[in-house]
Amino acid sequence: MKVSAGKSILSANDQQAARNLDRLTRDRLLAINILASPGAGKTSVIKRLLAALSPAHAVGVIEGDVASSIDTDAIVALGYPATQINTDGGCHLDAAMIDRALEALRLRGPGFLFIENIGNLICPTGFRLGESLRLLIASVPEGDDKPLKYPGAFATADAIVLNKMDLMPLVDFKMDSFLAAVRTVNRSVPVCNISCRNGMGFDALVGWLLEQGSRRPWMRR
Amino acid sequence: MKVSAGKSILSANDQQAARNLDRLTRDRLLAINILASPGAGKTSVIKRLLAALSPAHAVGVIEGDVASSIDTDAIVALGYPATQINTDGGCHLDAAMIDRALEALRLRGPGFLFIENIGNLICPTGFRLGESLRLLIASVPEGDDKPLKYPGAFATADAIVLNKMDLMPLVDFKMDSFLAAVRTVNRSVPVCNISCRNGMGFDALVGWLLEQGSRRPWMRR
Repeated sequence: MKVSAGKSILSANDQQAARNLDRLTRDRLLAINILASPGAGKTSVIKRLLAALSPAHAVGVIEGDVASSIDTDAIVALGYPATQINTDGGCHLDAAMIDRALEALRLRGPGFLFIENIGNLICPTGFRLGESLRLLIASVPEGDDKPLKYPGAFATADAIVLNKMDLMPLVDFKMDSFLAAVRTVNRSVPVCNISCRNGMGFDALVGWLLEQGSRRPWMRR
Repeated sequence: MKVSAGKSILSANDQQAARNLDRLTRDRLLAINILASPGAGKTSVIKRLLAALSPAHAVGVIEGDVASSIDTDAIVALGYPATQINTDGGCHLDAAMIDRALEALRLRGPGFLFIENIGNLICPTGFRLGESLRLLIASVPEGDDKPLKYPGAFATADAIVLNKMDLMPLVDFKMDSFLAAVRTVNRSVPVCNISCRNGMGFDALVGWLLEQGSRRPWMRR
């Protein structure tokens, strides 16, 4: 009984996610679902990507948080469209929440929509939102063994970003171990080393996003 | 239907947690449920506490991870008793898992049992394990706004440890903002600033644990 109930809930989410993807495609928006631990730098990465991609492209943000609107307030203050989802204790975003947020945001492309998921490397993994891409942000202070401890998030990522590279000299993080751990769970995912503090790696990350956009014919003007 | 099913599951967990607490008390063990984000330093904190508390006290560890036995292997290699729980995708420990782990560990006090929960600031909050104390480990690189974003974990903590203080000069972390955020969700919780890298703050943290132990008459020899 429990299993079948779980399946029907997941399937309802998948159905809504497919409808979200249809809508996003119609609106010529490439949606990026961003997964990370609390404090890995999701909002900081998004802020730099917004600055790099606009005004050449439409950009917008859906912010997911258990509570507070700190991140949305910061992004709106910078002049970008953003809308907040508060899950009130919920541990992941789901496709129905994104449906409502899209209705509130009313963004039109061609461009990029960033969806900042709840800071959690486990639960968001199982819930498609209608995204075209999943970006996983790891960060150097978290340590090099996280892909082995949270394999689901690393296995389902379309790209992995390793943030806070500026802290590398100060912490015990072995890049070889991290990359080997990533390869254990995801053979082909690109890994991009960045620092939101000094901007390192963002040219490559923006280039990857633009290339992903160029692969979708509906993203062309 | 969903709500009542949820309630009965929680209640079953609470019942098992109460049985775990009975058993731990009988075995004269003070159990500390450790909550944190991935990579905040749970295992590093535990290692330093094990060294400080033993051999004067019995010590042991239950390690919770989605996957891998990296942390248990490291603790056993140091000569301390430890047992691993793998949740295989599950986002929190529950009291039934702890029941089985206690059976495997067979630790006898008087002393301290550390339970390292899954790295997740949301889901573990709702599941009592039979612990006497909840310790929340935050870390400086995660940022000063986390109590506002993950209020449940901070609200239910008996003590908050702020780790990686050695990185403070290198990141944008305002201590005043962090403490104000903590007080917004938890008026009276003690906050202890530490660094696993240089040992800062561990005298105070160990002192707090020993004081907590001394308040339980069954912890006396």
